[in-house]
Amino acid sequence: MTIKLYCFGESGHSYKAALALELGGFDWEPVKVDFFAGETRGEDYRGTKNEMGEAPVLIDGDVTLTQSSVIQDYLSEKTGKFGGKDAAERREILRWQFWDNHKFSSVAGMTRFLMNFLPEDKQPKEVIGFNLGRLKGAYDILNKHLEGRDWIVGDSLTNADLTCCSYLYYPEPFGFDRADWPNIDRWLTNISETPGWKHPYDLMPGSPADRA
Amino acid sequence: MTIKLYCFGESGHSYKAALALELGGFDWEPVKVDFFAGETRGEDYRGTKNEMGEAPVLIDGDVTLTQSSVIQDYLSEKTGKFGGKDAAERREILRWQFWDNHKFSSVAGMTRFLMNFLPEDKQPKEVIGFNLGRLKGAYDILNKHLEGRDWIVGDSLTNADLTCCSYLYYPEPFGFDRADWPNIDRWLTNISETPGWKHPYDLMPGSPADRA
Repeated sequence: MTIKLYCFGESGHSYKAALALELGGFDWEPVKVDFFAGETRGEDYRGTKNEMGEAPVLIDGDVTLTQSSVIQDYLSEKTGKFGGKDAAERREILRWQFWDNHKFSSVAGMTRFLMNFLPEDKQPKEVIGFNLGRLKGAYDILNKHLEGRDWIVGDSLTNADLTCCSYLYYPEPFGFDRADWPNIDRWLTNISETPGWKHPYDLMPGSPADRA
Repeated sequence: MTIKLYCFGESGHSYKAALALELGGFDWEPVKVDFFAGETRGEDYRGTKNEMGEAPVLIDGDVTLTQSSVIQDYLSEKTGKFGGKDAAERREILRWQFWDNHKFSSVAGMTRFLMNFLPEDKQPKEVIGFNLGRLKGAYDILNKHLEGRDWIVGDSLTNADLTCCSYLYYPEPFGFDRADWPNIDRWLTNISETPGWKHPYDLMPGSPADRA
């Protein structure tokens, strides 16, 4: 049975799950969530898809899962791919996924939204400035970690990479310039040169161009 | 060998790990991290304890772990406690831990810091207001989930509870009033009535009173 992923192109959090499905070789299809029309905030979505009001949501037969890292965990259990080769690697992957959710893609996704998807006169400038400062600290942590490494954990692509890269391929500005962070830049190329890799706007339905 | 947890009383993220150690019945001791003197931002801490510059850090012999949910995962593997009774419960626990890190205790911890531990004239008012609005949405999600439930996942205390409760016992204001959220209020009592439970300021060294 084809796995369904409720997602939308602009969502880096959705991209983490979509890229894991695509590179994992799954039979899957994206179902567009109309985030910008308020779908995730509605009672129906919260009642039937995700009480947390977020994308992505994965539906595989009787199984409904949310939170991209949980979806990745589920997919890795099916394929044996991207989940690390032992308990220590599994925990190191999880460690970067929690760091990402707490300090990195949470802030990047929010800041990109505020700077690009809100009208100029509704953008909270102090919040954006505060977040841009926090993001610099996060880029620095990731860039230092990637010194001398091709991947975040171990010697191959894992869910840690699929999680942490999620917002970094988008063209809309949120204070990230690959040229400023050479190790991140090299690592993003390693991921995008992986056979089967696709850009978020090519992997999921919806992009800012649709709303232009 | 006694497990060491690098932590400090004001840190709800540390509390998630400390409470898991205490209720798990471990032989452990807290080691105070002097966060307010900049210890986690220093090169030594980042080089030897945690490149992410955060507390808590657990050291158990040769094993060094960071990120409170990863520490909880490690402890549950040793005791069989709090980790859920099957793969579905394990993923549901992980789902709430990721939600917490992304949308809940990350925002609560930050807001409590800005409102209570920064001088009045350095508090970014727009950021605080923005965060208070986001937190209301998060309280509502948790309160609705706890309708008719004693625990977040399954029929007993799990790591999901130990994670999501982390900032909610602190006295410093950050826009949370137990009286506004009756299911959260009842659930917090369930946790604090668990034998062995301790308040964060009783479980870890350091509190605002020390700096008064």
